[in-house]
Amino acid sequence: MNIDSQWLETIRRELHRIPEPSFREEKTSRFVAERLDEMGIPWTRAAGTGIVARCGQGPPCVAIRADMDALPLEEKTGMPFSSSHPGMMHACGHDGHMAMVLGAARMLSAAEPEGEVRFLFQPAEESGGGAKAMIEEGCLDGVDVIFGGHIDRNFHVGEIAVNTGLITAYADGFEVDIWGKGGHAARPHEGVDAIVVASLLVISIQTLITREVDPAYPSIVSVGTINGGDAPNVIADHVRLEGTIRTTHPEVRSRILRGLGRMVSSMEELYGARTSYAITGRYPPVVNDKWAAGLAREAAAKVVGEERVTAQRHPSLGGEDFSFYLHKIPGCFVRFGGFKEGCGEAPAHSSRFDFDERVLPLGARFFAEAALLSIARLGGGSG
Amino acid sequence: MNIDSQWLETIRRELHRIPEPSFREEKTSRFVAERLDEMGIPWTRAAGTGIVARCGQGPPCVAIRADMDALPLEEKTGMPFSSSHPGMMHACGHDGHMAMVLGAARMLSAAEPEGEVRFLFQPAEESGGGAKAMIEEGCLDGVDVIFGGHIDRNFHVGEIAVNTGLITAYADGFEVDIWGKGGHAARPHEGVDAIVVASLLVISIQTLITREVDPAYPSIVSVGTINGGDAPNVIADHVRLEGTIRTTHPEVRSRILRGLGRMVSSMEELYGARTSYAITGRYPPVVNDKWAAGLAREAAAKVVGEERVTAQRHPSLGGEDFSFYLHKIPGCFVRFGGFKEGCGEAPAHSSRFDFDERVLPLGARFFAEAALLSIARLGGGSG
Amino acid sequence: MNIDSQWLETIRRELHRIPEPSFREEKTSRFVAERLDEMGIPWTRAAGTGIVARCGQGPPCVAIRADMDALPLEEKTGMPFSSSHPGMMHACGHDGHMAMVLGAARMLSAAEPEGEVRFLFQPAEESGGGAKAMIEEGCLDGVDVIFGGHIDRNFHVGEIAVNTGLITAYADGFEVDIWGKGGHAARPHEGVDAIVVASLLVISIQTLITREVDPAYPSIVSVGTINGGDAPNVIADHVRLEGTIRTTHPEVRSRILRGLGRMVSSMEELYGARTSYAITGRYPPVVNDKWAAGLAREAAAKVVGEERVTAQRHPSLGGEDFSFYLHKIPGCFVRFGGFKEGCGEAPAHSSRFDFDERVLPLGARFFAEAALLSIARLGGGSG
Amino acid sequence: MNIDSQWLETIRRELHRIPEPSFREEKTSRFVAERLDEMGIPWTRAAGTGIVARCGQGPPCVAIRADMDALPLEEKTGMPFSSSHPGMMHACGHDGHMAMVLGAARMLSAAEPEGEVRFLFQPAEESGGGAKAMIEEGCLDGVDVIFGGHIDRNFHVGEIAVNTGLITAYADGFEVDIWGKGGHAARPHEGVDAIVVASLLVISIQTLITREVDPAYPSIVSVGTINGGDAPNVIADHVRLEGTIRTTHPEVRSRILRGLGRMVSSMEELYGARTSYAITGRYPPVVNDKWAAGLAREAAAKVVGEERVTAQRHPSLGGEDFSFYLHKIPGCFVRFGGFKEGCGEAPAHSSRFDFDERVLPLGARFFAEAALLSIARLGGGSG
Repeated sequence: MNIDSQWLETIRRELHRIPEPSFREEKTSRFVAERLDEMGIPWTRAAGTGIVARCGQGPPCVAIRADMDALPLEEKTGMPFSSSHPGMMHACGHDGHMAMVLGAARMLSAAEPEGEVRFLFQPAEESGGGAKAMIEEGCLDGVDVIFGGHIDRNFHVGEIAVNTGLITAYADGFEVDIWGKGGHAARPHEGVDAIVVASLLVISIQTLITREVDPAYPSIVSVGTINGGDAPNVIADHVRLEGTIRTTHPEVRSRILRGLGRMVSSMEELYGARTSYAITGRYPPVVNDKWAAGLAREAAAKVVGEERVTAQRHPSLGGEDFSFYLHKIPGCFVRFGGFKEGCGEAPAHSSRFDFDERVLPLGARFFAEAALLSIARLGGGSG
Repeated sequence: MNIDSQWLETIRRELHRIPEPSFREEKTSRFVAERLDEMGIPWTRAAGTGIVARCGQGPPCVAIRADMDALPLEEKTGMPFSSSHPGMMHACGHDGHMAMVLGAARMLSAAEPEGEVRFLFQPAEESGGGAKAMIEEGCLDGVDVIFGGHIDRNFHVGEIAVNTGLITAYADGFEVDIWGKGGHAARPHEGVDAIVVASLLVISIQTLITREVDPAYPSIVSVGTINGGDAPNVIADHVRLEGTIRTTHPEVRSRILRGLGRMVSSMEELYGARTSYAITGRYPPVVNDKWAAGLAREAAAKVVGEERVTAQRHPSLGGEDFSFYLHKIPGCFVRFGGFKEGCGEAPAHSSRFDFDERVLPLGARFFAEAALLSIARLGGGSG
Repeated sequence: MNIDSQWLETIRRELHRIPEPSFREEKTSRFVAERLDEMGIPWTRAAGTGIVARCGQGPPCVAIRADMDALPLEEKTGMPFSSSHPGMMHACGHDGHMAMVLGAARMLSAAEPEGEVRFLFQPAEESGGGAKAMIEEGCLDGVDVIFGGHIDRNFHVGEIAVNTGLITAYADGFEVDIWGKGGHAARPHEGVDAIVVASLLVISIQTLITREVDPAYPSIVSVGTINGGDAPNVIADHVRLEGTIRTTHPEVRSRILRGLGRMVSSMEELYGARTSYAITGRYPPVVNDKWAAGLAREAAAKVVGEERVTAQRHPSLGGEDFSFYLHKIPGCFVRFGGFKEGCGEAPAHSSRFDFDERVLPLGARFFAEAALLSIARLGGGSG
Repeated sequence: MNIDSQWLETIRRELHRIPEPSFREEKTSRFVAERLDEMGIPWTRAAGTGIVARCGQGPPCVAIRADMDALPLEEKTGMPFSSSHPGMMHACGHDGHMAMVLGAARMLSAAEPEGEVRFLFQPAEESGGGAKAMIEEGCLDGVDVIFGGHIDRNFHVGEIAVNTGLITAYADGFEVDIWGKGGHAARPHEGVDAIVVASLLVISIQTLITREVDPAYPSIVSVGTINGGDAPNVIADHVRLEGTIRTTHPEVRSRILRGLGRMVSSMEELYGARTSYAITGRYPPVVNDKWAAGLAREAAAKVVGEERVTAQRHPSLGGEDFSFYLHKIPGCFVRFGGFKEGCGEAPAHSSRFDFDERVLPLGARFFAEAALLSIARLGGGSG
């Protein structure tokens, strides 16, 4: 199967211009719908801005998923197709994922598969609510197996990494509020300085990782935002911290969740502050099914050759809400090598992130092959 | 001289309802102007929202100053005349100061002084630009001596504190920017976490006070705001800190200013962050003139009795831009006792600040007496 | 082959009573020599307190190694055979290792192997100089393969873990000196407080792990000792920190070594302290030879059954100077399950450490079998 | 009255060579006794190494006090009469104080005063137990007024500073023990790292001063010693901190004492460590009597001229156990200017401390004059 690289690139770039936040992917959704209409592929809306498209008829039924949302970053790549939305950027490759799945749809609608292929364009992967919402609206009903993937600059273009078992981390979001007591900056002793408390807490949190968990299990606690204080000459009476916890072992996870709570609460005695601590959004890890991973390996080998089918050495600490689908049905999530010369220093979720667009046709073909292979193995056409 | 307490209270409360930020005291300015018009006292605008009113004719000429601006705090006093402006509050007593000076104007316009009394309603005391702007527009031209004061909950109602010499701190604002390197929260090693750097810096700054300056000279470094990070699952690439430095000795001041710069800059080596450090807004200390302080003491004794004329034990670490006037001409800045039973825990610049309104007529009478005494000593009527 | 468990236990307990520091294992050395004499096994001294014993004649030649030294801990196990040396304790199982190798010597001298088996009782494993010294004195000359092992409470008694490749960490010791400036504790501004500097440094070091290295590669920086200050009322002018770095990837290792140096040196700008930083003692990781690991697996299966031959999941972050032997010749280092019910909370290097003595005959038999198997494969008797 | 400067200098230098710790001033005591014997002044031992000498007969009775002990510092002055006791040094001027009081004794025994002058050579001023012990042994019995003084490099030679009221701080010693849980440095998650806990605590303590007490009242918390850990590759299970708290206001004192306790105890929740916190040694502040200060001022004026009698601007934060005497009877403690060109950077309690020996005859004469004046005012000779 072949696919027009130029067409994929154009789609990716047009999507890149219009990055939108989780659950607010309106322009993105319209753009995807228009492309499906052009190809004559029927679709419906789901989960607000999500889209479910179909070709062929099942059983069996294979789903392919793309994520749609972008990140609240100011793009600094300087690329001609840079974001036209101030403060938003496709810095995680979802623009590429959508292009790949549209490409797969194009190939598969031409291939007339002997079963159903369902294309899930899912909103809100970053915020974690999208997969759940798609499932609740029945998008997985009747699906036998699901595939998804992520562009990954840790692999070179041409490589596809397929693993069995746990491949991403538990990802738990958290919010901490520190309530001090305001007052004149010149009379700190009459207040409780929430900025000092928050700073000490951020520093203490580091020891959760260095002193409280087994280094054999990769773990991370990152505070991503800190905001507090009203004016330079007023003692801050409130600071909010938001962050994320990534773990690869359930015991380590629960030790960190408890440990963070303990540290937050200890600030009450240490400084006389009031605190609150909440876990917001929990992703389970992505656990690939053995059978589905076998199919994925086979499909990948067809696209890039057996010797370029590789594997992750370690679980990624990135969260991925594809895990919610795999809680329901078997499937496999793969990595598409997307390392780009000249922007090696710009990781995902950074304002200079980019990837090598030659990955797009490889991803599209992988999805198409995986769908066809699955249908064949599941007894397609027998339905 | 007497003044209607009810009238002063009403003025203070109406002003309290309409707190406005520095240099944006539009409603406040209109309110003051209307009251002056009611009393038939001529006035002009100065420094944008400022007002200069006059009664009598000089030389000699005595100025009395009130400050007009409020603070960006959400009022939580629960008082019936609480702020009607969300996020703004008269939490420093400037509403009372304006009422006092309007009261003095009322008494003095009746008293027909044998010289000029000039009433300076000055914008932007908190941000520090107001006094400077008033001076630049000539408001001090021809003025022989100036008086001002502040309601102070460290003294009881009925006490007026008058000191010679330095009574407030050097106040220097600062801004620190920490530039790290963003990225996915799950790959911190590919970034530089500006939140960790900022937290460490806040903690280090404490030792400027505890280890680097002579505790005999009261000093403060307060970080009042901290803001950084784009999303919980993205490594923060920038944090901004804003704060204030209060010192009472020029050598201590310069040691802290240098020390803070050194600490900020050391974060480059310590963590590989980029940093910037700027001093924003510098207030000199208020230094009361000996002669003017003598007059103030005399005026205070007339109002509250000699035994209730007291003095500050230590320089206040609050900044006060009255210092700019005293750089130009002699004058005296006093403290009006305003401690209020039942809100003893609520310092100035806090969202529950209040003062005992019985201070209002005392302040008004003090200013009127000080003006008349000054004119008498300066040879009023001889002009 | 069989061995008297009671005899092994007695040996272990007698050794346990007389723990001695690195290179000062005098009593220990005498004790081992006496047991060898009792068995009629010839021996010589090496590396000071070390012992090299031999049975049979090569080629081929197989070496078996035991470590002899103890740790500077105050034993708190309450066992009847507790340390009789105040402040010293066998808290790492070396007493057991010596018993095992004496047991192997007993079995092998009876078995009359068709080649040489050389028993290396090595001093100073903890301090890291012992293996090096043994090698320099020629103890490996003519040796074809070497085996060693460690009692490990992460495995149950009856399990033996054998891995190919890297199984322990790079271990680098470090020393940091902070030089401040002393003075009266009441005038800290005239000094530089080395205790504050050291504390900040210890805290900062945590972020080397949490923010600067890939969590996929287990890494540790531990400060093990901190000492500074002359008197409670004198500003400390010096603090010394000693610690250890454990890494499992050469790039991570060099990033941490450099990063720690950078952080230490940044204290000069941050606080005006002088600093020095030295790497003391470097262990390479233990890398098991593939062929030797195969032999070890076979020998282990003979002793505990194939299904109880297991493997470490991750490299251990413990250092082990067996690595120096493996730099010279092939060999294999294994783990003997030694988990003891009722002291599960007491890790190696802690003052309550103990292990299940049922591991002793298993270890002795493993070494004997591994020696015989090696001789057979290496063409023993053909020499 | 005159005194041989050479003689004083020799005494000071010989004492300087033999610095001894608190309560172990054996050589010092013998040296003082020999000088008294040479002068024919009778003396007795008190408080172990202390000496009480007398001339004249009372009532009235005036006491003059010198302190005898040195500090555990390694002298680095390079002076020819440097300490001959390794690790001990007269770094606080007590050698000079003893010389002065011996000089006063010489002058007064010649002057045949009409009352008793009692010379108290007191051990253990640094550790704080000396004055108490002297009092308990009755050394103050019958004494009407007491004088003491300290060489002070903040004043020039020739100046004597005399104040009424509080002139030194409350000085409270403290000891903190942090008990973590030891273990192998490579498995920190199985232990509790007492060094990390202690470091965080030292850092947190800084905010007691910066955020919890009114900067108008000079206050200090200094940790003077930190010691913990057994070996570089073992997690430290214990760290001890010792330090001193200096305050100038009783409320600030109790806030810091409580706050430090709160912070120490919060480490239990923050890190799971066990802690203990003890206050060791409490000095009250030195509070000079008004009448005695008047006498001191008069005596000082006789010696250095009225215009060189000055005053401390602020209470010193140095502790001084002369306070115990002033709890019992009136008296005055003064400062003798001792600034020495060329060692301006070397504060008391530092290893390069020195003072200008020209202060010695001034101090001796001050004490003699103060004694005679007191006797005259108290009605000497009438007894």
